[in-house]
Parts: sequence; structure tokens; C-alpha cells
Amino acid sequence: MATGILTAVLASDHSSVVSMNLFVALLCGCIVIGHLLEESRWMNESITALAIGVCTGVVILLTTGRKSSHLLVFSEDLFFIYLLPPIIFNAGFQVKKKQFFRNFMTIMLFGAVGTLISFAIVSVGAIEIFKKMNIEDLQIGDYLAIGAIFSATDSVCTSILVFGEGVVNDATSVVLFNAIQSFDLSHISTTTALQFAGNFLHLFISSTLLGVLAGLLSAFIIKKLYFGRHSTDREVALMILMAYLSYMLAELFYLSAILTVFFCGIVMSHYTWHNVTESSRVTTKHAFATLSFVAEIFIFLYVGMDALDIEKWRVISDTPGKSVGVSSILLGLILVGRAAFVFPLSFVSNLMKKAPYEKIGFKQQITIWWAGLMRGAVSMALAYNQFTSLGHTQLRGNAMMITSTITVVLFSTVVFGLMTKPLIRILLPSPKHLTRMLSSCHF
Amino acid sequence: MATGILTAVLASDHSSVVSMNLFVALLCGCIVIGHLLEESRWMNESITALAIGVCTGVVILLTTGRKSSHLLVFSEDLFFIYLLPPIIFNAGFQVKKKQFFRNFMTIMLFGAVGTLISFAIVSVGAIEIFKKMNIEDLQIGDYLAIGAIFSATDSVCTSILVFGEGVVNDATSVVLFNAIQSFDLSHISTTTALQFAGNFLHLFISSTLLGVLAGLLSAFIIKKLYFGRHSTDREVALMILMAYLSYMLAELFYLSAILTVFFCGIVMSHYTWHNVTESSRVTTKHAFATLSFVAEIFIFLYVGMDALDIEKWRVISDTPGKSVGVSSILLGLILVGRAAFVFPLSFVSNLMKKAPYEKIGFKQQITIWWAGLMRGAVSMALAYNQFTSLGHTQLRGNAMMITSTITVVLFSTVVFGLMTKPLIRILLPSPKHLTRMLSSCHF
Repeated sequence: MATGILTAVLASDHSSVVSMNLFVALLCGCIVIGHLLEESRWMNESITALAIGVCTGVVILLTTGRKSSHLLVFSEDLFFIYLLPPIIFNAGFQVKKKQFFRNFMTIMLFGAVGTLISFAIVSVGAIEIFKKMNIEDLQIGDYLAIGAIFSATDSVCTSILVFGEGVVNDATSVVLFNAIQSFDLSHISTTTALQFAGNFLHLFISSTLLGVLAGLLSAFIIKKLYFGRHSTDREVALMILMAYLSYMLAELFYLSAILTVFFCGIVMSHYTWHNVTESSRVTTKHAFATLSFVAEIFIFLYVGMDALDIEKWRVISDTPGKSVGVSSILLGLILVGRAAFVFPLSFVSNLMKKAPYEKIGFKQQITIWWAGLMRGAVSMALAYNQFTSLGHTQLRGNAMMITSTITVVLFSTVVFGLMTKPLIRILLPSPKHLTRMLSSCHF
Repeated sequence: MATGILTAVLASDHSSVVSMNLFVALLCGCIVIGHLLEESRWMNESITALAIGVCTGVVILLTTGRKSSHLLVFSEDLFFIYLLPPIIFNAGFQVKKKQFFRNFMTIMLFGAVGTLISFAIVSVGAIEIFKKMNIEDLQIGDYLAIGAIFSATDSVCTSILVFGEGVVNDATSVVLFNAIQSFDLSHISTTTALQFAGNFLHLFISSTLLGVLAGLLSAFIIKKLYFGRHSTDREVALMILMAYLSYMLAELFYLSAILTVFFCGIVMSHYTWHNVTESSRVTTKHAFATLSFVAEIFIFLYVGMDALDIEKWRVISDTPGKSVGVSSILLGLILVGRAAFVFPLSFVSNLMKKAPYEKIGFKQQITIWWAGLMRGAVSMALAYNQFTSLGHTQLRGNAMMITSTITVVLFSTVVFGLMTKPLIRILLPSPKHLTRMLSSCHF
């Protein structure tokens, strides 16, 4: 009786309770194991979760007789409504505001312009190469979608630049993806391109303003109404509800909810947070961080489990060479697409800065390039949206795109991810970089 | 794209975003208005939320041209999975353990035996009177369900006795209700009655043990593994996940999840809570209280809005006299059913206590009787489960039971609820009772 609402996400009634139990137990396991491995030179929590997810997937696959590998089918809705907003809000809430605003222009340059450059290169590359490889079922809209899907990064936070870029990149790629799905792509002209640019700017500015306004409103309500009398529970409840309201309002006005909730987080931590009781401060700081932490682990566990979904692999099982080829090409395009904006835009950014210590050195440019090579849950969610309907696909080209996305996500997270720590140790051997980069920001 | 998962609960896509916005804004409104009215002699937060809910329902009814009054249809699943567990867990987490265990036997007597007595009286009363009133479509199972539905209290916390009784009552009435739905009622014998009693005892003891075990396990993990090194986010995440796991495990083994999560909360606050960092302590204490607080307001707002659901009222609109009669009889049965166990069981409890200050005085018995007369969300959820399918009903008898439940919930919450504060002020004029009773516990 108490589990029916979960059936939208899960399979059937009592088996869904079993799944939920296993899943929550695995989450606990990830936290404990991640804590024990924290000192390790290579690992981080997301790789641990991904590994546990894949292992569980294998076990389920073997015990259920190769029927299915996942406890729950990857659901974009779950991801975009429940998991991503707390992560992004917390990013805004905990960001070091002084550093963020000092580097604001550079962050925007990387996050918005850089993502567009990467999108253009991956799209054009995919059109040129995949057409020659004779991949079936793909239209022009699919190629553009591939560009957006593989421009959504899942950075490891090596610096405030990469951190800020990650959030803006997220918003940009989601807006881009939605624009591609809704635009008429049969006749692309200068007018539609300009319309597209105008639309993008409008979205960007309105979303930011809405977030700032919601944050200020929460500060005003708590400061004015609660004068002289404080109630921690009410303050915390109001902050959470107002943050959620800003997210839902952005959805209502068809804005970018990710950007809105990010700026709402920034304003709340700057104004609202200083008007509440000491208990409320401690509670909100840790509650938001915990929520974000659990959501991140959840995502990686989920992606790890879903990676072995046998149905999609079966569709492409007779052409293994082609599948490996497609994944390799996509990885190559990601490497080139990111290099094509990190180095030129760093040059542009350095032109704007006067003080030498503010300029981005070449070694730092390499770490920025490397730290944004990972692809993660946003790419997965967008790929599922474009290439499946209700989690299923029978078209060979579409199935190949899904399996390639999974391959790229797993490979980039594990291989590129594991190499990030050593790479930074070699390139930037100062200890402050080593401690700063311990946290990973999953966008 | 990001709102599809809500469609299970809500109507359609973009209108559901509108509903969510309005609903979250109303929640914020309830918190602010509740805060401003806190000093008032009569009001409490649940009546405020109920009133705002009904008013919004009226506005929606008028603006949509009398089509529907609710933003969201009352969903048991939402209630039993997302709203009730945090409330009950928080009740266990914040309960004053010394007082609770000193009164343990009396609480069990009131919560378990008392609820059974109330169930028997309401059921028998309904059978006798409603059969004479010639209400259509009701079977023996429906009458027994009515007994369980109207034995689920929504107490105002006047004392630790009423508080503890509220939780046990919740578990008892839900277990009772499920047993009635699953038992074969065509031939009731002593054997089935004994089976029923055995089943009930088994459920009660197993659920309690499971909750205690889950709490102890969380304490063990945090104490052993985190020795010498603490991480607030991980500690808070583990506590939340373990609490949720205990709830899901109880569901898995078909136990009473409400009881499990309550005892898990007690053990966690007694053992786990003392092994974590100071920040974790502040965070968990306030985060759980906030969650519970928001869930309570949510429920009352929700019930208030749903009360004007025009469809059910239309079915019974040609027999207004009969409807008023049914509601009045149910209210009468509630008054009698509660009196029939509070006074005798108080007498029994007094026999067991030696010290005179531990005995329950007559004036206190009256406040205990009165404080448990309110009916709330549990009654609503059970009534919807018994008398509708997917929120709809066409049978006249069933529709009448739904509207009567709504009437009883609204009337008892508002009228009995508003009279509680003044009544206690007259009967128990000592100041400690007045401050103690300010909080209401919604079970």
C-alpha cells in the first residue's frame, strides 16, 4: 500500500521494495567505503560509487539469469527534478563568492562560449565521420544533439574556474539541447541563428535575475518578519522552500532552472544566511552539503548499474568493431573540442587581466583542459532523452548512441578521472593545489 | 521535460508546474502566517494550514468554474511514503526518553488496547445505526474499516502520555486496517480472533526490534569506522539513510514501518547522536525537526484543499440531511469510543502505580480524552483507500463515507482543536501544562 508511487520509477510492487532496500544499503556502503578510501592517492567517491554500481550490476545480471542489470531504469525526471537541483543549489551556497566574482568574466567565457565551441566541433566532427561510417537512423537533429550531449562536462574541481565553468556549462548544454529539440532544423539561416543567440541571452539573464530575486526575497522575509524572535525550524524550512520555489518558478517561465537555483544559492548564502540563528546556519550548511553529497553518490551508483543494461548491448552486439570505433571517435572529439576552447579562451582571458598572478599559466591551462574531460549524468540524461522513448530503443543507430554514451561516461570518469590527481601532482606540485582538488564537483 | 515524474500525482504537464508553484508558495505563506499567529490564544499551525487550504480551495473552485478544488488529488502513497515517515521518525528522535520509558506500560495500554476498544465501539455502533438508516453499498468489511478509520487519532500533545499514545495508535490502526482488508471476514470465529491477536503481537514486537537494531547498527558503524576522523556530511547522510533503510526493511518484511522508524529514531537519538560531531548533532536535530514540520503543514494544507472536492459532494447532494446525520453519528461514536477506554484504562494504570504523583487525576483524564478526539490525515488516507479507487467513487454509500470523513476531520480539528487550549487552561491551570501543550503532535 505504501509503495505504489514508486512504481513509476521501479518495476513492480514488492520487488520494488526489495530494490529500494538494496539501493539504500548500497548507498550506505558507498559512503562507508568512500570514507575508508579517502586517503587513497587515486580514488574518489564518484569512482567508488561507479565501481560498486557496475559490480552490483554484474551480480544482478548473473543472479537474474541475464535478464536485466539494473534495480531502477535511469530516469531523466528523477535526475532533473530530484538529484540535480540540490547539487547545483549547494554549489551556489558553498561557493567562495569572492573568488567566483573576481573570475566571473573568465567563468562565463569558458562556460558559455567554450561550451558552444565544443558543441560546434563535436557536432561537425560527428556529421563528417559518422556519415562516412554509415551509421543508420541518424538525422541532422541527432547530430546536433550529440554535440550538446558530449559538451556537458562533469568536472573534477581543480580550481574556481573549473568549478564555475561546470555550473555554467551545465546550464548552457541543457538550454542548447532543448533549443535543438524545439527548433525547426530543416532550414537553418542567419535569422534563426540570431534568434537562437537572442533566446540564449534572454534565458541566461532572466534565469540569473530570477534566482537573485528569490534569494533576496527570502532574506527580506526572514529579516523583517522574524525580527526579535527566531525559530530555527521555520528559518530552515523557509530557506529550503524558497530555493525549491525559485527552481519551480524557473520551470514555470521556461527558464534555465539550473542557473536560477545556482544564483539563488549564492544570494542566500550571502544575505539570508547572515540573518538567521547560529543553529540555522550550521543546519543549512551541512544539510545542503549532505543532500548534494547523497545525490552525487546516488547518480554514480545509478549510472554504474544502468551501464550493463543488456537490451541495448544486444542490439549492437553483431557489430562490436563499429561500436568501439564510435566510442573512440567521440572520446577523440571530446579531447579536441575541449582543447579548441580552453587554450584560445585562456589567451583571451589573459589579455583582459593586467596583474601577472591573475593570468592563467600554460600548465594551469592543461589542468583546466583535463579536469573537464569527464562526462557524467547530464550527458546520460540527455542521451536517454534523445535516443530512447520510455527507456527503450529498437533502432540500431539509437542503441549505438546510448551504448557509446555509457562507454564514454565510464571510460572518461574512470580513466581520465583516475589520472587527474597524478597529473596535477606533476604539473602543479604546490601543496595548496593538492588539498584544493580533493573535492570533485559533479555537473 | 523535468516535470514528468510528478504527473503520477498531478494533473498534466505545464499545469502541474503551476500547481507545484502555488503549493510551495502556500507552504511558505503558512509558515509565515503561523509564525505571526504563534502568540494567539486559540490558533495553532495545523488549523492555520487547514484554513488556508480551504480558502485556496474555494478560490480555485470559483476561478475554474466549479470544476475542481484541489491542486493535487489526495494520494495515500505520497502520504505514507513521503510525509508520515519523517514525522514519526522525528517524534522518536525528539521524544523525552526518560519520561517515555517511565510511562511505557500506560502508553502501550492506551495506544494498543485503547485503540482496539475504540475500534470495537465505533464498528458496532456503525453497524447498528447505519443499518437502520439504510445506507447503501456497505458490507461488513466496510463497517470494520470505519472502526479502524475513526480510531486513528491526530492528537494535540498535551502530555507524554498523549504523545506516546499517538504514535502507538497510528501503528495500531494502520495494522488493524490492513488486517481487516486481508482477512476473510465471512466466518469470524475464536480461532481467527486469536490469530489476529497473535499476528498483531508479532508485528508489534518484530517492528520494534527491527527499529532498535537499525538504530544500534548506525551507532556501531559511526562509532567504529569513524574512529579518530569525522566527517559531518557523511555522518548526517548515514543517519538519514539508515533511518530510511529501517523504514524500507519494515515494508519488505510486511511489518509496521511506522513503529520501526519510531524506535529507530529513539535509539539513534540515544546512541548514534552522542558519537557524532557537534555540527552533526545540531544539523540532525534541526533538519529532522524541519522535515517533520514541513510535512505536517503540507498534510493539513493538502487535506484542506481536498476537502472541497466537488465530485464527492455532488453524489450525496440530494440527501443533505442523511449526510449531516452520518457525520454527527460518527462524531458521537468517536466521543463515546474514546471515553470508553480513557477512563477505564486510566483506572487500570492507576492500580499499577504506587506513588500518588504518578497517578492520573480525573481532570487529567478529561484532557487526555479531549486531546485525542481530533481526526486527521491517517483517517483520510485510510478512508480513501477503502472507499475509492484511484481517487474516484460513484457508489452513493462510499461517496457518503468520504464526505463524512472529510467533515469529521475538519470539524474535529477546528472545533475540538480550538477548544483544547482553553479547556486545559480551565482544568489544569498550572503554567507548566500551558507551555508544554503548545506543540501539537500530528499522528
